[in-house]
Amino acid sequence: MNKLKLLAILFSLLSGNALAAEQWQALPKTAPAPVDNPTTPEKVELGKMLYFDPRISSNGTVSCFSCHNVMEGGDDHRPTSIGVHDQAGGRNAPTVWNAAFHSVQFWDGRAATLEEQAKGPPANPIEMGMTDLDAVAQRIQTIPGYKPYFDKAFGKGENINIDTIAKAIASYERTLITPNTAYDRYVRGDKKAMNAQQLRGMQKFADNGCVACHSGANFNGPSMPVGVGFYQKFPTFTDNSYVTRYGLTDDDGRMASTGKVEDKNMWRVPTLRNLTYTAPYMHTGNVNSLDEAVRLMAKTQLNKSLKERDVADIVAFLGSISGEFPQQTMPRLPATPGGMID
Amino acid sequence: MNKLKLLAILFSLLSGNALAAEQWQALPKTAPAPVDNPTTPEKVELGKMLYFDPRISSNGTVSCFSCHNVMEGGDDHRPTSIGVHDQAGGRNAPTVWNAAFHSVQFWDGRAATLEEQAKGPPANPIEMGMTDLDAVAQRIQTIPGYKPYFDKAFGKGENINIDTIAKAIASYERTLITPNTAYDRYVRGDKKAMNAQQLRGMQKFADNGCVACHSGANFNGPSMPVGVGFYQKFPTFTDNSYVTRYGLTDDDGRMASTGKVEDKNMWRVPTLRNLTYTAPYMHTGNVNSLDEAVRLMAKTQLNKSLKERDVADIVAFLGSISGEFPQQTMPRLPATPGGMID
Repeated sequence: MNKLKLLAILFSLLSGNALAAEQWQALPKTAPAPVDNPTTPEKVELGKMLYFDPRISSNGTVSCFSCHNVMEGGDDHRPTSIGVHDQAGGRNAPTVWNAAFHSVQFWDGRAATLEEQAKGPPANPIEMGMTDLDAVAQRIQTIPGYKPYFDKAFGKGENINIDTIAKAIASYERTLITPNTAYDRYVRGDKKAMNAQQLRGMQKFADNGCVACHSGANFNGPSMPVGVGFYQKFPTFTDNSYVTRYGLTDDDGRMASTGKVEDKNMWRVPTLRNLTYTAPYMHTGNVNSLDEAVRLMAKTQLNKSLKERDVADIVAFLGSISGEFPQQTMPRLPATPGGMID
Repeated sequence: MNKLKLLAILFSLLSGNALAAEQWQALPKTAPAPVDNPTTPEKVELGKMLYFDPRISSNGTVSCFSCHNVMEGGDDHRPTSIGVHDQAGGRNAPTVWNAAFHSVQFWDGRAATLEEQAKGPPANPIEMGMTDLDAVAQRIQTIPGYKPYFDKAFGKGENINIDTIAKAIASYERTLITPNTAYDRYVRGDKKAMNAQQLRGMQKFADNGCVACHSGANFNGPSMPVGVGFYQKFPTFTDNSYVTRYGLTDDDGRMASTGKVEDKNMWRVPTLRNLTYTAPYMHTGNVNSLDEAVRLMAKTQLNKSLKERDVADIVAFLGSISGEFPQQTMPRLPATPGGMID
């Protein structure tokens, strides 16, 4: 985002005005990729196989897909995810849809890129439970059918390692985007794409200040360089019943990974796309309805008690930035040598 | 199979002759369906959604797909499957590929049809862990997005219940067939479809008597009426080291479900299709290689010690009845209402 645009947004927020129509942005139809990992069809194909392969986990039961279900909202319907051996994670699984448009990954932004993120869960003892990342590479090396796909994606040679695995998965994830919502079609010029309630909700979303944080094409804040996060304190206003009811301050947020007091209860501003498909909500995963999530955010972040009519309109608007999901073919996974998993 | 054919096979077996070419059968290109559940595109579409939906399990982590992975061999790479709360099953997951051509389901044939089979795992406490089958239907009723698909598949009305759920899943499973292997193409007339070693293996498979049990288009025995199983004792010959090494008699087999002594160590003769993709082997899931599985079966069922060259040829033949898997699109699952799964 250039400075002029930023100033315009700040001005409109400070002056209490709604965003001008030209400030609503559609999602780009392709996701940006790092210079050292350009997206290619071969990497995407391999990455899709790896994404769906539960053999990346210690007992062969958990894949990326298990907690980031791309047949649905890119998450897992649960408050927090279940990893190997019935262990529950501490935070609600973020959606993989449009993660490619985040400048940092995870709730606390502790990974700069999708490649770095992909190296997190496999060796996490409560997620996929592999002893270390080398063990992941060895596991994939043990499945002979993968080799031709790595050769096609990365050139022949000793090419199965955690970096190529992560690059392939990230390449696939960069195709998991939803740039054809009703909202996107509207912003691109199809004025019939959104209905009256969705348009009212869009206006209220702006007027109430939601857009101060949830700005930009992905509704996750201003465009930032890769690795630089856009964080906000959540909850900002703590003198309300939501904070205790949902335990919103029980988790230190970014401080848990940085160790810095100034990061206490700081969180990456997440995308609002596809919320219709990702209940339950918040890092706690204990807010069940989108209505309640909107009320909660208005109170904790803007100190506003919204009228129920406004809540309904904003929820309708959030529906207009959900879907449409691209049709995908199922990957075919190579055969397992027996004895690989006990 | 008519009586004449059966006699011809018995004669060729008794006389030690190989099967005549006309007795090798290709798999039909469509699977038979019961009169009260004809396969329709609408049921297949709905069934695919349900098959992939982990919300059928108590904690939302286990779907049919979890243990019967149609992106691979229709099983789960593991010795025995892991259900909810890290519980391990007692037997190796059978492949779902071509299950439609079995006259009974499960290792011990305790279900007559795919519809009946589909009602097994959901309320099994160590598999999907729902309290009962009504709870499964209630769970699906709670997801509003399913209703239009049930209406399309079963006609409008009160149509979400365990019977329609099972019918839809069974309809999808009837599309999970592999009638285009090298072997099938060979039998249909393409004499170049199988290579020399595969053809040698086919001859040895017949000459050694494997085909006595593993006959027919699905290599699971003679064609039987639905609900009538083709069972064999396994192991038949117990005076060999395989029995103790792999604990082959530890499980009572069909006796465990019928309670009848005559069913002790009796098992449904399983298909041999797609073995290349379904290691590890046997109901125990502890035989790691296909070579070892062939050796073990020859010794325990035919009391023969095969030469290594014969083992290799038979394994090559088994490769010719593996694949080719149909390309499938991923289903789209309807959104979860928050709070449905704790």
